[in-house]
Amino acid sequence: MAVKDSLNAGELRDYYDSADDINLTPGWVDWGQHGAPEIEPFLWRWSQVEPLVLKSGEVVTPDRDVERRTMRLATPGLQRGTTHTLLAALQLLLPGECAPSHRHTPTAIRWILTGEGAYTTVEGDKCAMEPGDLILTPSWTWHDHTNEGSSPMIWLDGLDIPLVHYLKATFFEQFPEDTQPVISEGDSVRRYGAGSYRPAWEQVDVPYSPLLHYKWAKTNEALQNLAGVNSSPFDDVAIEYSDPVTGGPVLKTMTCWIQMVRAGVHTKAHRHTASKIYQVFRGEGYSVIDGKRFDWSQGDFFVVPSWAWHEHVNESGEEAILFSIQDTPIMKSLGLYREEPYVENAGNQPVTSRFEG
Amino acid sequence: MAVKDSLNAGELRDYYDSADDINLTPGWVDWGQHGAPEIEPFLWRWSQVEPLVLKSGEVVTPDRDVERRTMRLATPGLQRGTTHTLLAALQLLLPGECAPSHRHTPTAIRWILTGEGAYTTVEGDKCAMEPGDLILTPSWTWHDHTNEGSSPMIWLDGLDIPLVHYLKATFFEQFPEDTQPVISEGDSVRRYGAGSYRPAWEQVDVPYSPLLHYKWAKTNEALQNLAGVNSSPFDDVAIEYSDPVTGGPVLKTMTCWIQMVRAGVHTKAHRHTASKIYQVFRGEGYSVIDGKRFDWSQGDFFVVPSWAWHEHVNESGEEAILFSIQDTPIMKSLGLYREEPYVENAGNQPVTSRFEG
Amino acid sequence: MAVKDSLNAGELRDYYDSADDINLTPGWVDWGQHGAPEIEPFLWRWSQVEPLVLKSGEVVTPDRDVERRTMRLATPGLQRGTTHTLLAALQLLLPGECAPSHRHTPTAIRWILTGEGAYTTVEGDKCAMEPGDLILTPSWTWHDHTNEGSSPMIWLDGLDIPLVHYLKATFFEQFPEDTQPVISEGDSVRRYGAGSYRPAWEQVDVPYSPLLHYKWAKTNEALQNLAGVNSSPFDDVAIEYSDPVTGGPVLKTMTCWIQMVRAGVHTKAHRHTASKIYQVFRGEGYSVIDGKRFDWSQGDFFVVPSWAWHEHVNESGEEAILFSIQDTPIMKSLGLYREEPYVENAGNQPVTSRFEG
Amino acid sequence: MAVKDSLNAGELRDYYDSADDINLTPGWVDWGQHGAPEIEPFLWRWSQVEPLVLKSGEVVTPDRDVERRTMRLATPGLQRGTTHTLLAALQLLLPGECAPSHRHTPTAIRWILTGEGAYTTVEGDKCAMEPGDLILTPSWTWHDHTNEGSSPMIWLDGLDIPLVHYLKATFFEQFPEDTQPVISEGDSVRRYGAGSYRPAWEQVDVPYSPLLHYKWAKTNEALQNLAGVNSSPFDDVAIEYSDPVTGGPVLKTMTCWIQMVRAGVHTKAHRHTASKIYQVFRGEGYSVIDGKRFDWSQGDFFVVPSWAWHEHVNESGEEAILFSIQDTPIMKSLGLYREEPYVENAGNQPVTSRFEG
Repeated sequence: MAVKDSLNAGELRDYYDSADDINLTPGWVDWGQHGAPEIEPFLWRWSQVEPLVLKSGEVVTPDRDVERRTMRLATPGLQRGTTHTLLAALQLLLPGECAPSHRHTPTAIRWILTGEGAYTTVEGDKCAMEPGDLILTPSWTWHDHTNEGSSPMIWLDGLDIPLVHYLKATFFEQFPEDTQPVISEGDSVRRYGAGSYRPAWEQVDVPYSPLLHYKWAKTNEALQNLAGVNSSPFDDVAIEYSDPVTGGPVLKTMTCWIQMVRAGVHTKAHRHTASKIYQVFRGEGYSVIDGKRFDWSQGDFFVVPSWAWHEHVNESGEEAILFSIQDTPIMKSLGLYREEPYVENAGNQPVTSRFEG
Repeated sequence: MAVKDSLNAGELRDYYDSADDINLTPGWVDWGQHGAPEIEPFLWRWSQVEPLVLKSGEVVTPDRDVERRTMRLATPGLQRGTTHTLLAALQLLLPGECAPSHRHTPTAIRWILTGEGAYTTVEGDKCAMEPGDLILTPSWTWHDHTNEGSSPMIWLDGLDIPLVHYLKATFFEQFPEDTQPVISEGDSVRRYGAGSYRPAWEQVDVPYSPLLHYKWAKTNEALQNLAGVNSSPFDDVAIEYSDPVTGGPVLKTMTCWIQMVRAGVHTKAHRHTASKIYQVFRGEGYSVIDGKRFDWSQGDFFVVPSWAWHEHVNESGEEAILFSIQDTPIMKSLGLYREEPYVENAGNQPVTSRFEG
Repeated sequence: MAVKDSLNAGELRDYYDSADDINLTPGWVDWGQHGAPEIEPFLWRWSQVEPLVLKSGEVVTPDRDVERRTMRLATPGLQRGTTHTLLAALQLLLPGECAPSHRHTPTAIRWILTGEGAYTTVEGDKCAMEPGDLILTPSWTWHDHTNEGSSPMIWLDGLDIPLVHYLKATFFEQFPEDTQPVISEGDSVRRYGAGSYRPAWEQVDVPYSPLLHYKWAKTNEALQNLAGVNSSPFDDVAIEYSDPVTGGPVLKTMTCWIQMVRAGVHTKAHRHTASKIYQVFRGEGYSVIDGKRFDWSQGDFFVVPSWAWHEHVNESGEEAILFSIQDTPIMKSLGLYREEPYVENAGNQPVTSRFEG
Repeated sequence: MAVKDSLNAGELRDYYDSADDINLTPGWVDWGQHGAPEIEPFLWRWSQVEPLVLKSGEVVTPDRDVERRTMRLATPGLQRGTTHTLLAALQLLLPGECAPSHRHTPTAIRWILTGEGAYTTVEGDKCAMEPGDLILTPSWTWHDHTNEGSSPMIWLDGLDIPLVHYLKATFFEQFPEDTQPVISEGDSVRRYGAGSYRPAWEQVDVPYSPLLHYKWAKTNEALQNLAGVNSSPFDDVAIEYSDPVTGGPVLKTMTCWIQMVRAGVHTKAHRHTASKIYQVFRGEGYSVIDGKRFDWSQGDFFVVPSWAWHEHVNESGEEAILFSIQDTPIMKSLGLYREEPYVENAGNQPVTSRFEG
């Protein structure tokens, strides 16, 4: 045993007390191996979420007091996050409303779920929001949302607020007016949206992707094209949105995926130190996360915590499409990304329980 | 005067001779400032080129003796190049023919001009050749061309042969068979062609762009989109094809541009240490290169040598579209790229002569 | 006011309850601007620390039960860290002892304080520990410490444990034996230690600096040389240890500095989103951190939290030398680094209090 | 046979003529495999070179007419280069002389051979020239040389003039005065010379190594240290000078090596697409280049052309030290670097001839 017996109990207590007096703590405590994830995988059903999101329109107005009207996906065990690094929330914007202009160091994405007629302005570029679109509002970019349509608009916000807060790097600023001036409409798409082409003379002088808006039609085209030729054993047809200038992830702290689990596919399980938040964009199926089965269908959200085994299954006759945000870039930048396949049982976990919600 | 008079003429001659005997040469000779380009700008008319290219089909067969049936654009003053670093040539492939499979360290692009029904296979991926398509065959990739259609196929080959030859790095190898096995059809497009999306799990382990084929429809979409929002003073609406993984030029030694000179546009002149070879894909207009006017219309080719002043003019009522290859990546990689605007005369050169061809 | 009055108090309570039932939380709570740092700057006196560190030798043995005999610098408000991302601790190794071999994903540095005759073995390379030396044990490298000398050895451990723990990426493994085999002695220094020279044929295939040991003689030479020619307004003569292969910081999550505050120098104040832990290697002076004066002399430790104003003063006639570890690489990798100068009062803070310890 | 017989001889001649008329040339000519190097390896003896270099002091003065008094190593077959890309020359500067200040796009290195008391000023930093020192004058940096000592100063100039000239990127400018103002003395060494340490706050805003001067004492220390621990089969103890900020080669177009062939060592042969120019700094031995033996001793120069097999032998009892410049960075930047070991005969070439000089 490591603790010597040269000091008696009282002397030992005195020793610890005198260390405590000058803010020293004994370090002979193992920091532990990486045990079970402290947060549990979880799932939110759209059928339950949507009414409450719609009702939030009766509760609060997105003015300068609240800035945004959102309902956060609060994973059990976490106070202000959906994973330890990321936060997902549903934002509602009613016809005629405007979520006022501001900027903050946390980075955000918007994944458009329902409605039409609204737009987000990012650094002066007006981006029309349509279901399946991904809109980026990178760290410290001015942005505001306006609903000029006639129906409620709901989208998924994904942010790295827990990380930025942990790193004590949260800064926030309001724009002097409720909305920033619109300088252009869809310019980022027209300049960088066609794919592997770029304005030949432009120097990109912003520290983020000059493409801020990924339209669903193109995203779907990419997905369908890839589905014809290749797939991953763990994720089936998985596509990462990329920054046209660097070829890397669209954001420094988050990456976004669109993923098809084809009809009849049952992937192998693996785990990694990245955590993920999924939205079921289309179709139905289930995922097995750390041995628990999570059935999902269109509109649902679920979270795969860091280092949790996970696999995806589509027993329906239709393709299922999943959107996700992941903190992979954080882990890779800091040299902390790890991944391992589940090797027993032909790569699939025994299902030991089922999420009842 | 720098030469001293301490040695008389005979002694000086003896001195130079004894140096020459042991392969020393006096260095007191200025290496000169960058004077006028040693090669002149030049233009080839499609109306003259096409019949001779078609006739080459009667002269030679693309078998293992000749490998390729091409007619090279030989700029006056250069023996084996179109610029000092690049070579452009027209390749003809008749119905039923196959240009046999090989690979070489010079890098090549194929810019498809006329015909249908042919394809290039690059490292096993079959790429259908259609006018306006750009196909890459990077350094040391296996490639062959087959015409399964019913009409002659003509395309522009662009290569860095003069550079690679100068650098004594030319290697060449024949594939054991006339054609390599086709493993996939259009996979590079289906995996990387949709734009800023990439297969999430793939590690690109080749030292070149995993996208080998840029289809005209997408290229044109990029061009039309950009035309609506931005333009360069020197090149009007200029787009650089890019590598989806790096965001940089598609090749290490050459970059490719598609460029629209809109109706009524007259650009400013500038010059740079990169050289360019243009093909007029659509429309008509003229360029002024070092004070000489070069009128061009659909199908023509012209060369802008290194450090030559140049500007483009479209006085027609229709857009003109120019494709080009340029050696810019070489100059930038080696720290030798320079560019300067023409400042006199409001940025436009006086026209002092006209190319008669 | 943002909260509407369309729901009465009971309805509102019901609404929040039903959201809570399905793990949704209303997001209309400002996440706040970056307020005062939650941790206070703090200082530990060597005169108080050293006796307790030496006494730890009577309390515990660095065997497989405890792995390491360390006393941690526990900043008030933090349970297991010195800043929110970094942990500093004093390690004691008595003559004849060995701190057994292991590896872990947290990255560590060793800054040698007192003693002689001990060494650290890192991935088979035996590094003799002498005061002023910096030894790196990057993430997932095998390391163990052995004291073959006749006096107690004390050094400062700096680790990113709080960060890695927060990111749920802590992995730990014991080497099968107490010590790993010694393959070489000082090889990393002999291969990469002379400066801007590298073995011409070696491919560095590890994801960390191939130079693991920065000897004090060279560090001091660098510091003295720089002192003759240049200084920073905020940090006086400040040197960052660098990775010879990348030119960047020595570790992905921490950077190390050696810094001279010359006699008579009073720097300007600034603040940044990086946090720092200092050790006073030589000399005496004081720092003003968020308006509080911290007097320090040889052997003391102090912490500058994220976004705290700080400036350094040396009123003695001798140079003061400070070693520090900082989490700057984390903040820069994630795009969250910010810095600003203190502009009022000619750049120096009014001193409003004094640390009494 | 590829050439068809559908055209008779006259028709064929007419066809070629009409192509020639419009500057088209038939491409059905193989560009050939990479054959024997067109330049031969060569060697210059110091005993022959030195007297002629010294005598050049009687012939010419380094004033604005000639700029520099150099004798170039002219490899047989090349007009103005020592290899196809690089030029080496011996420069003589007599006591009291100054080689006037200028800058040019070709990049240069200076490897100091004999003399004392002279210095090179590079962008205002005065660098004392001592035998074994390497001084960089990167592309477009102002530089001049002054001999304040009492003996003739001789050094080796290495430049990429042939490359830059080939790429039509040669620019040259004279400084308005014969010498530029001296702003600092040895600053680049004092800021970046100690090794893997860098001024913590400095942003390097020049496109070249901020360390311009590599002193012999450090170079030798690096060499001796490495000799104790590791060696390359092809080059024995070979060190590449590196840029402290990037960790890469010191220049974009040339790399510099210092290399020890230890007593008794006979390396294996290999070849690569890079070319090299060697100076024998100390000791004696021989190299076998493409089967020919080149005996060398202190002061000699020899050239290893691209793709020539080469190996080094030291049969003396003393270490031999070789300095070299190489065009490797060009080849690697452009994706054209290749290397292969000589596999027959246990890795050593049969010696079939001997260089007689």
